[in-house]
Amino acid sequence: MKADWIAVDWGTSNLRAWGMDAGGAVLAEAVSEDGMGGLEPGGFEPALLELVEPWLGPGVTDVIACGMVGARQGWVEAPYAKVPVAALGDGLTLAPVRDGRLRVQILSGISQDNPADVMRGEETQIAGYLAEQPKYSGVIVLPGTHTKWVQIADGEIFHFGTFMTGELYALLSRQSVLRHSVAQGGGAAFVEAFEAAMARPEALAARLFGLRAEHLLAGTDKAVLGARLSGMLLGLEFAAARPYWLGQQVVLMAAEPLLGLYREAMGVVGLMPEVAEPDACVLAGLRAARLAGLEGKGVT
Amino acid sequence: MKADWIAVDWGTSNLRAWGMDAGGAVLAEAVSEDGMGGLEPGGFEPALLELVEPWLGPGVTDVIACGMVGARQGWVEAPYAKVPVAALGDGLTLAPVRDGRLRVQILSGISQDNPADVMRGEETQIAGYLAEQPKYSGVIVLPGTHTKWVQIADGEIFHFGTFMTGELYALLSRQSVLRHSVAQGGGAAFVEAFEAAMARPEALAARLFGLRAEHLLAGTDKAVLGARLSGMLLGLEFAAARPYWLGQQVVLMAAEPLLGLYREAMGVVGLMPEVAEPDACVLAGLRAARLAGLEGKGVT
Repeated sequence: MKADWIAVDWGTSNLRAWGMDAGGAVLAEAVSEDGMGGLEPGGFEPALLELVEPWLGPGVTDVIACGMVGARQGWVEAPYAKVPVAALGDGLTLAPVRDGRLRVQILSGISQDNPADVMRGEETQIAGYLAEQPKYSGVIVLPGTHTKWVQIADGEIFHFGTFMTGELYALLSRQSVLRHSVAQGGGAAFVEAFEAAMARPEALAARLFGLRAEHLLAGTDKAVLGARLSGMLLGLEFAAARPYWLGQQVVLMAAEPLLGLYREAMGVVGLMPEVAEPDACVLAGLRAARLAGLEGKGVT
Repeated sequence: MKADWIAVDWGTSNLRAWGMDAGGAVLAEAVSEDGMGGLEPGGFEPALLELVEPWLGPGVTDVIACGMVGARQGWVEAPYAKVPVAALGDGLTLAPVRDGRLRVQILSGISQDNPADVMRGEETQIAGYLAEQPKYSGVIVLPGTHTKWVQIADGEIFHFGTFMTGELYALLSRQSVLRHSVAQGGGAAFVEAFEAAMARPEALAARLFGLRAEHLLAGTDKAVLGARLSGMLLGLEFAAARPYWLGQQVVLMAAEPLLGLYREAMGVVGLMPEVAEPDACVLAGLRAARLAGLEGKGVT
């Protein structure tokens, strides 16, 4: 089968491609672990070809990509578009290719000057959601390594904030003195720690060591201590993100296990989020970029 | 030269030994990187002999050790003494040895039930300080990977709190997305970030990613961003440690570079700490344990 065009979501640790027909339906899908984080400048084109070569015809096939592939250390730097701005940013950037069958264009990231912040990839998921719900005003939350809280108004990304909650959890649970004391968990211990962290966020560094001490002294179950670690980190995030969620309509764009944790946390503060599926949204966003016919610019 | 006895400070990453004369003066000193963290159960005695064998005579030489060597994964588990308790704990624990020239005894750690907390090594430094200043009442701060804030009253350790500030700094500056954005620094950026973190500690996870974004967008100097990282982590600690320092006399037991950072932070909140030298204190503490003639107990 030959694709009419190819949609690509290229993050730090994964590469995902979809072969699309002219009507925007998915003909084929392929995934690899050739994330941007592990590739040298010359490695992007071969990594992409390895996945999509079977879908190429004799002519030129358009590829539209989003994510960290457009970072400074990526295939080509796709400039940031500044908020307030449409989620699709202000144009696509052409990536340099050798194989004449490919024409690769990368979506802009989004930046904010005050406070300084950036995103790459999430804007495409947001564009996908807004393609379905063009009138949506409110907040979209995208949990992950670097969780984004994004205010949407008038169809544009208006303001956003990034929280390193996921990366803190990964570092603390895998590489700190806590690595032998915690395992993934949820439930009552999560909720208690979440509420305690919202009430006294400054106690983080002391409470973290408390998990280790409790494991040593009381032999508390690792899943309970892991649930507390999740709870205290999400409590810190929700305390700081209050201006984003208080009295707001919220869309939670997440898959398990983060979906469950964020939904539980949102329940504690009285939010009833609408849930959106991240993979479906990124594909819808790439489809919207294709339909918008944004002109490619930049190097070849 | 033959030692009358041997003092040992054995932490997670280092082993330090002093050959002592009968009057408590240092005859020789040796250091290796055979920390407890890298040793198997059978590795402790050889690691110690490698350093101290030249100091042994034909008879039995007493060794008094403190630190992580007494942890569950150490040479032998020296039980925790519970607060409130004298800094030297409640006795020494004999470690199993093969070489008849050694008699090795390990100092207790100190534990606290509520909130759960533990220390190993710092109690010996505190004992050393109190050997010189037996009437001291107030707080002793021991900055490090796991910073301790310790309340001293009536010559005993009364209450304490551990803050994972140093470990958070190490993880974030070396292993997180910030590793390319920060370098060690201090000065005005440190003070501003310290004050901001004390005022709004919940913003930690968002401010962390802000360092990365500022580096990307504004090209801010890495030493400035590193100073901010230090400042925000110490601000969080000082906000939570307020009950320890507000209106209290404070001893700061630290060496550079932590000495400078903590002294600057203490200046911001109006504290004028007395400074004590950590290495001198641990040696004084081991000397005090020797003089106290605590009886060894436990396995042989």
